[in-house]
Amino acid sequence: MRDLSPSDVIKAEVRGLTAYTLKHFKADVKLDQNENPYELPADLKKEITERVLSRPWGRYPEFVPEATIKVLSKFADWPAEGILAGNGSNELIQASLTVTLGPGRRIVLPQPTFTLYKLMSTALQADVHDVFMNAADMTFDIDGLIGAARSADVVVICNPNNPTGTLLERNALTAILKAARGLVLVDEAYHEFSEQSAAPLLKEHRNLVVLRTFSKAMAIAGLRFGYLLTHPEIAREINKGKLPYNVNIFTLAAAEVVIENRKVLQAAIEALITERERIAAELRKRPAVQVFPSKTNYLLIRTALGARELFEGLYVQGVLVRDVSAYPLLQNCLRVSIGTPEENNRFLSALDNALETKR
Amino acid sequence: MRDLSPSDVIKAEVRGLTAYTLKHFKADVKLDQNENPYELPADLKKEITERVLSRPWGRYPEFVPEATIKVLSKFADWPAEGILAGNGSNELIQASLTVTLGPGRRIVLPQPTFTLYKLMSTALQADVHDVFMNAADMTFDIDGLIGAARSADVVVICNPNNPTGTLLERNALTAILKAARGLVLVDEAYHEFSEQSAAPLLKEHRNLVVLRTFSKAMAIAGLRFGYLLTHPEIAREINKGKLPYNVNIFTLAAAEVVIENRKVLQAAIEALITERERIAAELRKRPAVQVFPSKTNYLLIRTALGARELFEGLYVQGVLVRDVSAYPLLQNCLRVSIGTPEENNRFLSALDNALETKR
Repeated sequence: MRDLSPSDVIKAEVRGLTAYTLKHFKADVKLDQNENPYELPADLKKEITERVLSRPWGRYPEFVPEATIKVLSKFADWPAEGILAGNGSNELIQASLTVTLGPGRRIVLPQPTFTLYKLMSTALQADVHDVFMNAADMTFDIDGLIGAARSADVVVICNPNNPTGTLLERNALTAILKAARGLVLVDEAYHEFSEQSAAPLLKEHRNLVVLRTFSKAMAIAGLRFGYLLTHPEIAREINKGKLPYNVNIFTLAAAEVVIENRKVLQAAIEALITERERIAAELRKRPAVQVFPSKTNYLLIRTALGARELFEGLYVQGVLVRDVSAYPLLQNCLRVSIGTPEENNRFLSALDNALETKR
Repeated sequence: MRDLSPSDVIKAEVRGLTAYTLKHFKADVKLDQNENPYELPADLKKEITERVLSRPWGRYPEFVPEATIKVLSKFADWPAEGILAGNGSNELIQASLTVTLGPGRRIVLPQPTFTLYKLMSTALQADVHDVFMNAADMTFDIDGLIGAARSADVVVICNPNNPTGTLLERNALTAILKAARGLVLVDEAYHEFSEQSAAPLLKEHRNLVVLRTFSKAMAIAGLRFGYLLTHPEIAREINKGKLPYNVNIFTLAAAEVVIENRKVLQAAIEALITERERIAAELRKRPAVQVFPSKTNYLLIRTALGARELFEGLYVQGVLVRDVSAYPLLQNCLRVSIGTPEENNRFLSALDNALETKR
């Protein structure tokens, strides 16, 4: 079939998608992906590579990574049967949506939020119901979410929300869980910075799925690890949407070592929270930018300048942030990760320069 | 919603699935997953861990793993724009099916074949059209496949086929490619053992997708790496079904080092082919078993004994094989990976013992 064109074989919903992409920028100060700027200590890295060197590489990982799941179970205080490990939490998002969504099925998404949810739901031909956040302060429209949850197969709450930084309080979450006809996916990618988790609600709410990642506070974005907590009956079904042998032996070893040494990361998390508060206070002193409340390791700011202009004004000074102005409601907005104090100071002075120059 | 049950939220097609599972058996001689029994040399492993230790772990992998893709492009002699890297080829199977299948869309599968295709297609609510192999010799029903391809969105050919070991000759594959209305996925997980590949057909056939894995001949099943070759226009669409940051920095480094040192693996591949022929000839001497022709690193055998009985007869002697008797047409069949000569001899004598005992 020599004249084949993708339009003949690819689903129309997929053809219509713009792929999730991120342009590749190099910069001295990288504040665009909400990564933890503090690398794992060298002795932990060494321990991980030594564990991996002692295992056969030519053999598949265990079908169920029991040792890792056991460590996670103890850490999260949740039964192993209700835990799935993933190639980043992205894979567990994909698995959760694959087993629940299809044509005629509905997902509710606060907007703006993490873009992958809408992309994957669209590829699965589901009906996507957006519930816009309150534009003034980027808080969740709680009544809107409760109402929409009644007729949805899946409700997603990134808590705190990306890219706004907003935390949904637990009683509001409980109200959504009670109203929901289907699953409520609470994506806790940044929960370590919010000092709140939905995990204690798992026992009461069988429709709750909690997603976690090791790419942010846990400092191994490069290794791709995430996990999911839910009722074992739901975990068994989501597991059917997950690839077999989805996490490699290196990442499994790293996840185990990171959890075993969790307290080593605590200082970094606390430093990032302190810095977030310091930078937010600094930004509030600057009338040319608006900063939204954040319970994460990043800040959403709005500028009177165009977002693109400010992005470039920072970039030419070696500071890379994320232009999120194409998200719904986020005209003129940038997202800035919290780095080390030095990086954050570089950001602040670059910001002042950029604003000064453009005024 | 306290009385939620999975049946309320999980798609019926998913609920009906039995998850892909593999019981965990320990054995001295592991011949159940078609792994390469020859580990990578220690110096290569060391080089890989050193490369990884020199990179930041807290940072996401590159959005497109350009260095790895470049190495693959040179190795496979195919443009980088037509290559996708995956978390094992499983992830690329999933992405390919996600962008093409849904309710009302059809996939054609030879049967028996690798089970993941049917599981994923069913979860995506597609219509699965089985084309049974010729039962006598487990060859492909070429006319059946050509006919079915005319009205299918996707045709899958595992070549050689798993678990039968059968090779589809290139002219038959070309006929299917020409007849096909949609994509033809040629899963070449075992192509190194068959000395044939569909890759030279890519230039002529824009509907061809070739899938490869590093889990078999390439000896890193534990690290999960696979890749896909297709027309850039198709690659761009399949990419939309793939997770961002899907391959971790360790696996990317390993894939690069393995390709750069590809000739180190050649001796292992040749040894496995030689052993396959030796063991097949040995088995043909035994009237109690039938052995099917194989161009892979495993052999499909049929036994007069029940498959379960023979499986257990081998297992009690420390030899683990795969019971494939639940696959269509494979009553009383086992699949045995080719191991080292010592492992293969252990298998043969365990087989003789088991057959002797049960006679």
